Amino acid sequence: MDHVRIIEVKQSVFADNDKRAAQLRQELKGRGVFLLNLMSSPGSGKTTTLRRTAELLKDELKIGVMEADIDSDVDARAMAEAGVKSIQLHTGGMCHLDADMTRQGLDELLAEGGVELAILENVGNLVCPAEFDTGAVKNAAILSVPEGDDKPLKYPLMFQVCDVVLINKMDVAPYFDFDLEKCREYIRMRNPNAKVIPICAKTGEGVEEWAGWLREQIRAWKV
Amino acid sequence: MDHVRIIEVKQSVFADNDKRAAQLRQELKGRGVFLLNLMSSPGSGKTTTLRRTAELLKDELKIGVMEADIDSDVDARAMAEAGVKSIQLHTGGMCHLDADMTRQGLDELLAEGGVELAILENVGNLVCPAEFDTGAVKNAAILSVPEGDDKPLKYPLMFQVCDVVLINKMDVAPYFDFDLEKCREYIRMRNPNAKVIPICAKTGEGVEEWAGWLREQIRAWKV
Repeated sequence: MDHVRIIEVKQSVFADNDKRAAQLRQELKGRGVFLLNLMSSPGSGKTTTLRRTAELLKDELKIGVMEADIDSDVDARAMAEAGVKSIQLHTGGMCHLDADMTRQGLDELLAEGGVELAILENVGNLVCPAEFDTGAVKNAAILSVPEGDDKPLKYPLMFQVCDVVLINKMDVAPYFDFDLEKCREYIRMRNPNAKVIPICAKTGEGVEEWAGWLREQIRAWKV
Repeated sequence: MDHVRIIEVKQSVFADNDKRAAQLRQELKGRGVFLLNLMSSPGSGKTTTLRRTAELLKDELKIGVMEADIDSDVDARAMAEAGVKSIQLHTGGMCHLDADMTRQGLDELLAEGGVELAILENVGNLVCPAEFDTGAVKNAAILSVPEGDDKPLKYPLMFQVCDVVLINKMDVAPYFDFDLEKCREYIRMRNPNAKVIPICAKTGEGVEEWAGWLREQIRAWKV
């Protein structure tokens, strides 16, 4: 499949990441591009969630996705198969993306213009990506049911920096000891403002609510 | 519960981690302590696997466990409740443990003597822990079925540095698109020498084989 572009993003040497992230956010605003940063553990369902999200939003918004991974191009292939403009970012072993690495990806993704919603699927990692502002307008995290309801206790920063937490794989809840109310409470302890939306990306459950939340954020940001 | 000790391990400033790890390994050999480094994504079942392992081995080996987390003490509590000597290591936000941080934990765990099998439950992260030699004799990784069979493609280093990969949560395999043979093949691509053992820590399936493998490694190392 030759329409998957792979971009090798270089680790940036800039200590002033926060400043660079703020600059990038400002520039994107000027270009009318809303950047979403999607983070989670490996295998929580980021790509499947994005496929579902694109199905719901692609008729109203031009979407472009950057799939960040240390290696492989399976995610960019999956998105391209779903008819979504996507590129693969290889991080050269790096465990996260910072603002400058994100900019390198955006340079490619936005080159032809037209993208209104750019989504960064960050490296699967519940620790390091939370430490770096990528320049995104909003941060989203996915926590999947099989990972357990105690993750906000163990990985505090991820839940502190998120605007929204999607609890994915709700379809398998009967087979796991996952207490949704307890999980909501732990997220609230870390971040009382985070929106929590239970979903199942596989069946589509809850994805309407998530797409609605995202639509609302984009609308508010454009004003 | 007052018998959970929490140790704040400080990020080490040593560039020569490999040398320090080799030194630590040598010292542990002199003291007759086998150190196992257990790594995985968040929520793959490290703690549950260790509880099962301890049940099988605790009558023949004195076991001590170091539970590394950024925050919380839920894992050390769980191990203590299972009657296993355990301490909690807090990494102060760090995404991994290096040899010096591991040594800080061992100083506490081994203070009273007697431990023959020391286990480091590393921070839940499929990226960074693989980059640092902790001084362990063997590295083990857990990959759980809900994470997906493609993880060795996306997180190459973790599978390269592992001596054994436990495929956990086999009980829920019917509810996920997880191809065990494909997963074995991907692991083999990264590391033809890695032993692969499917288990279910919840039901105990496969844990005998894993305990047998570990027993064998300890025996070989003691010679």
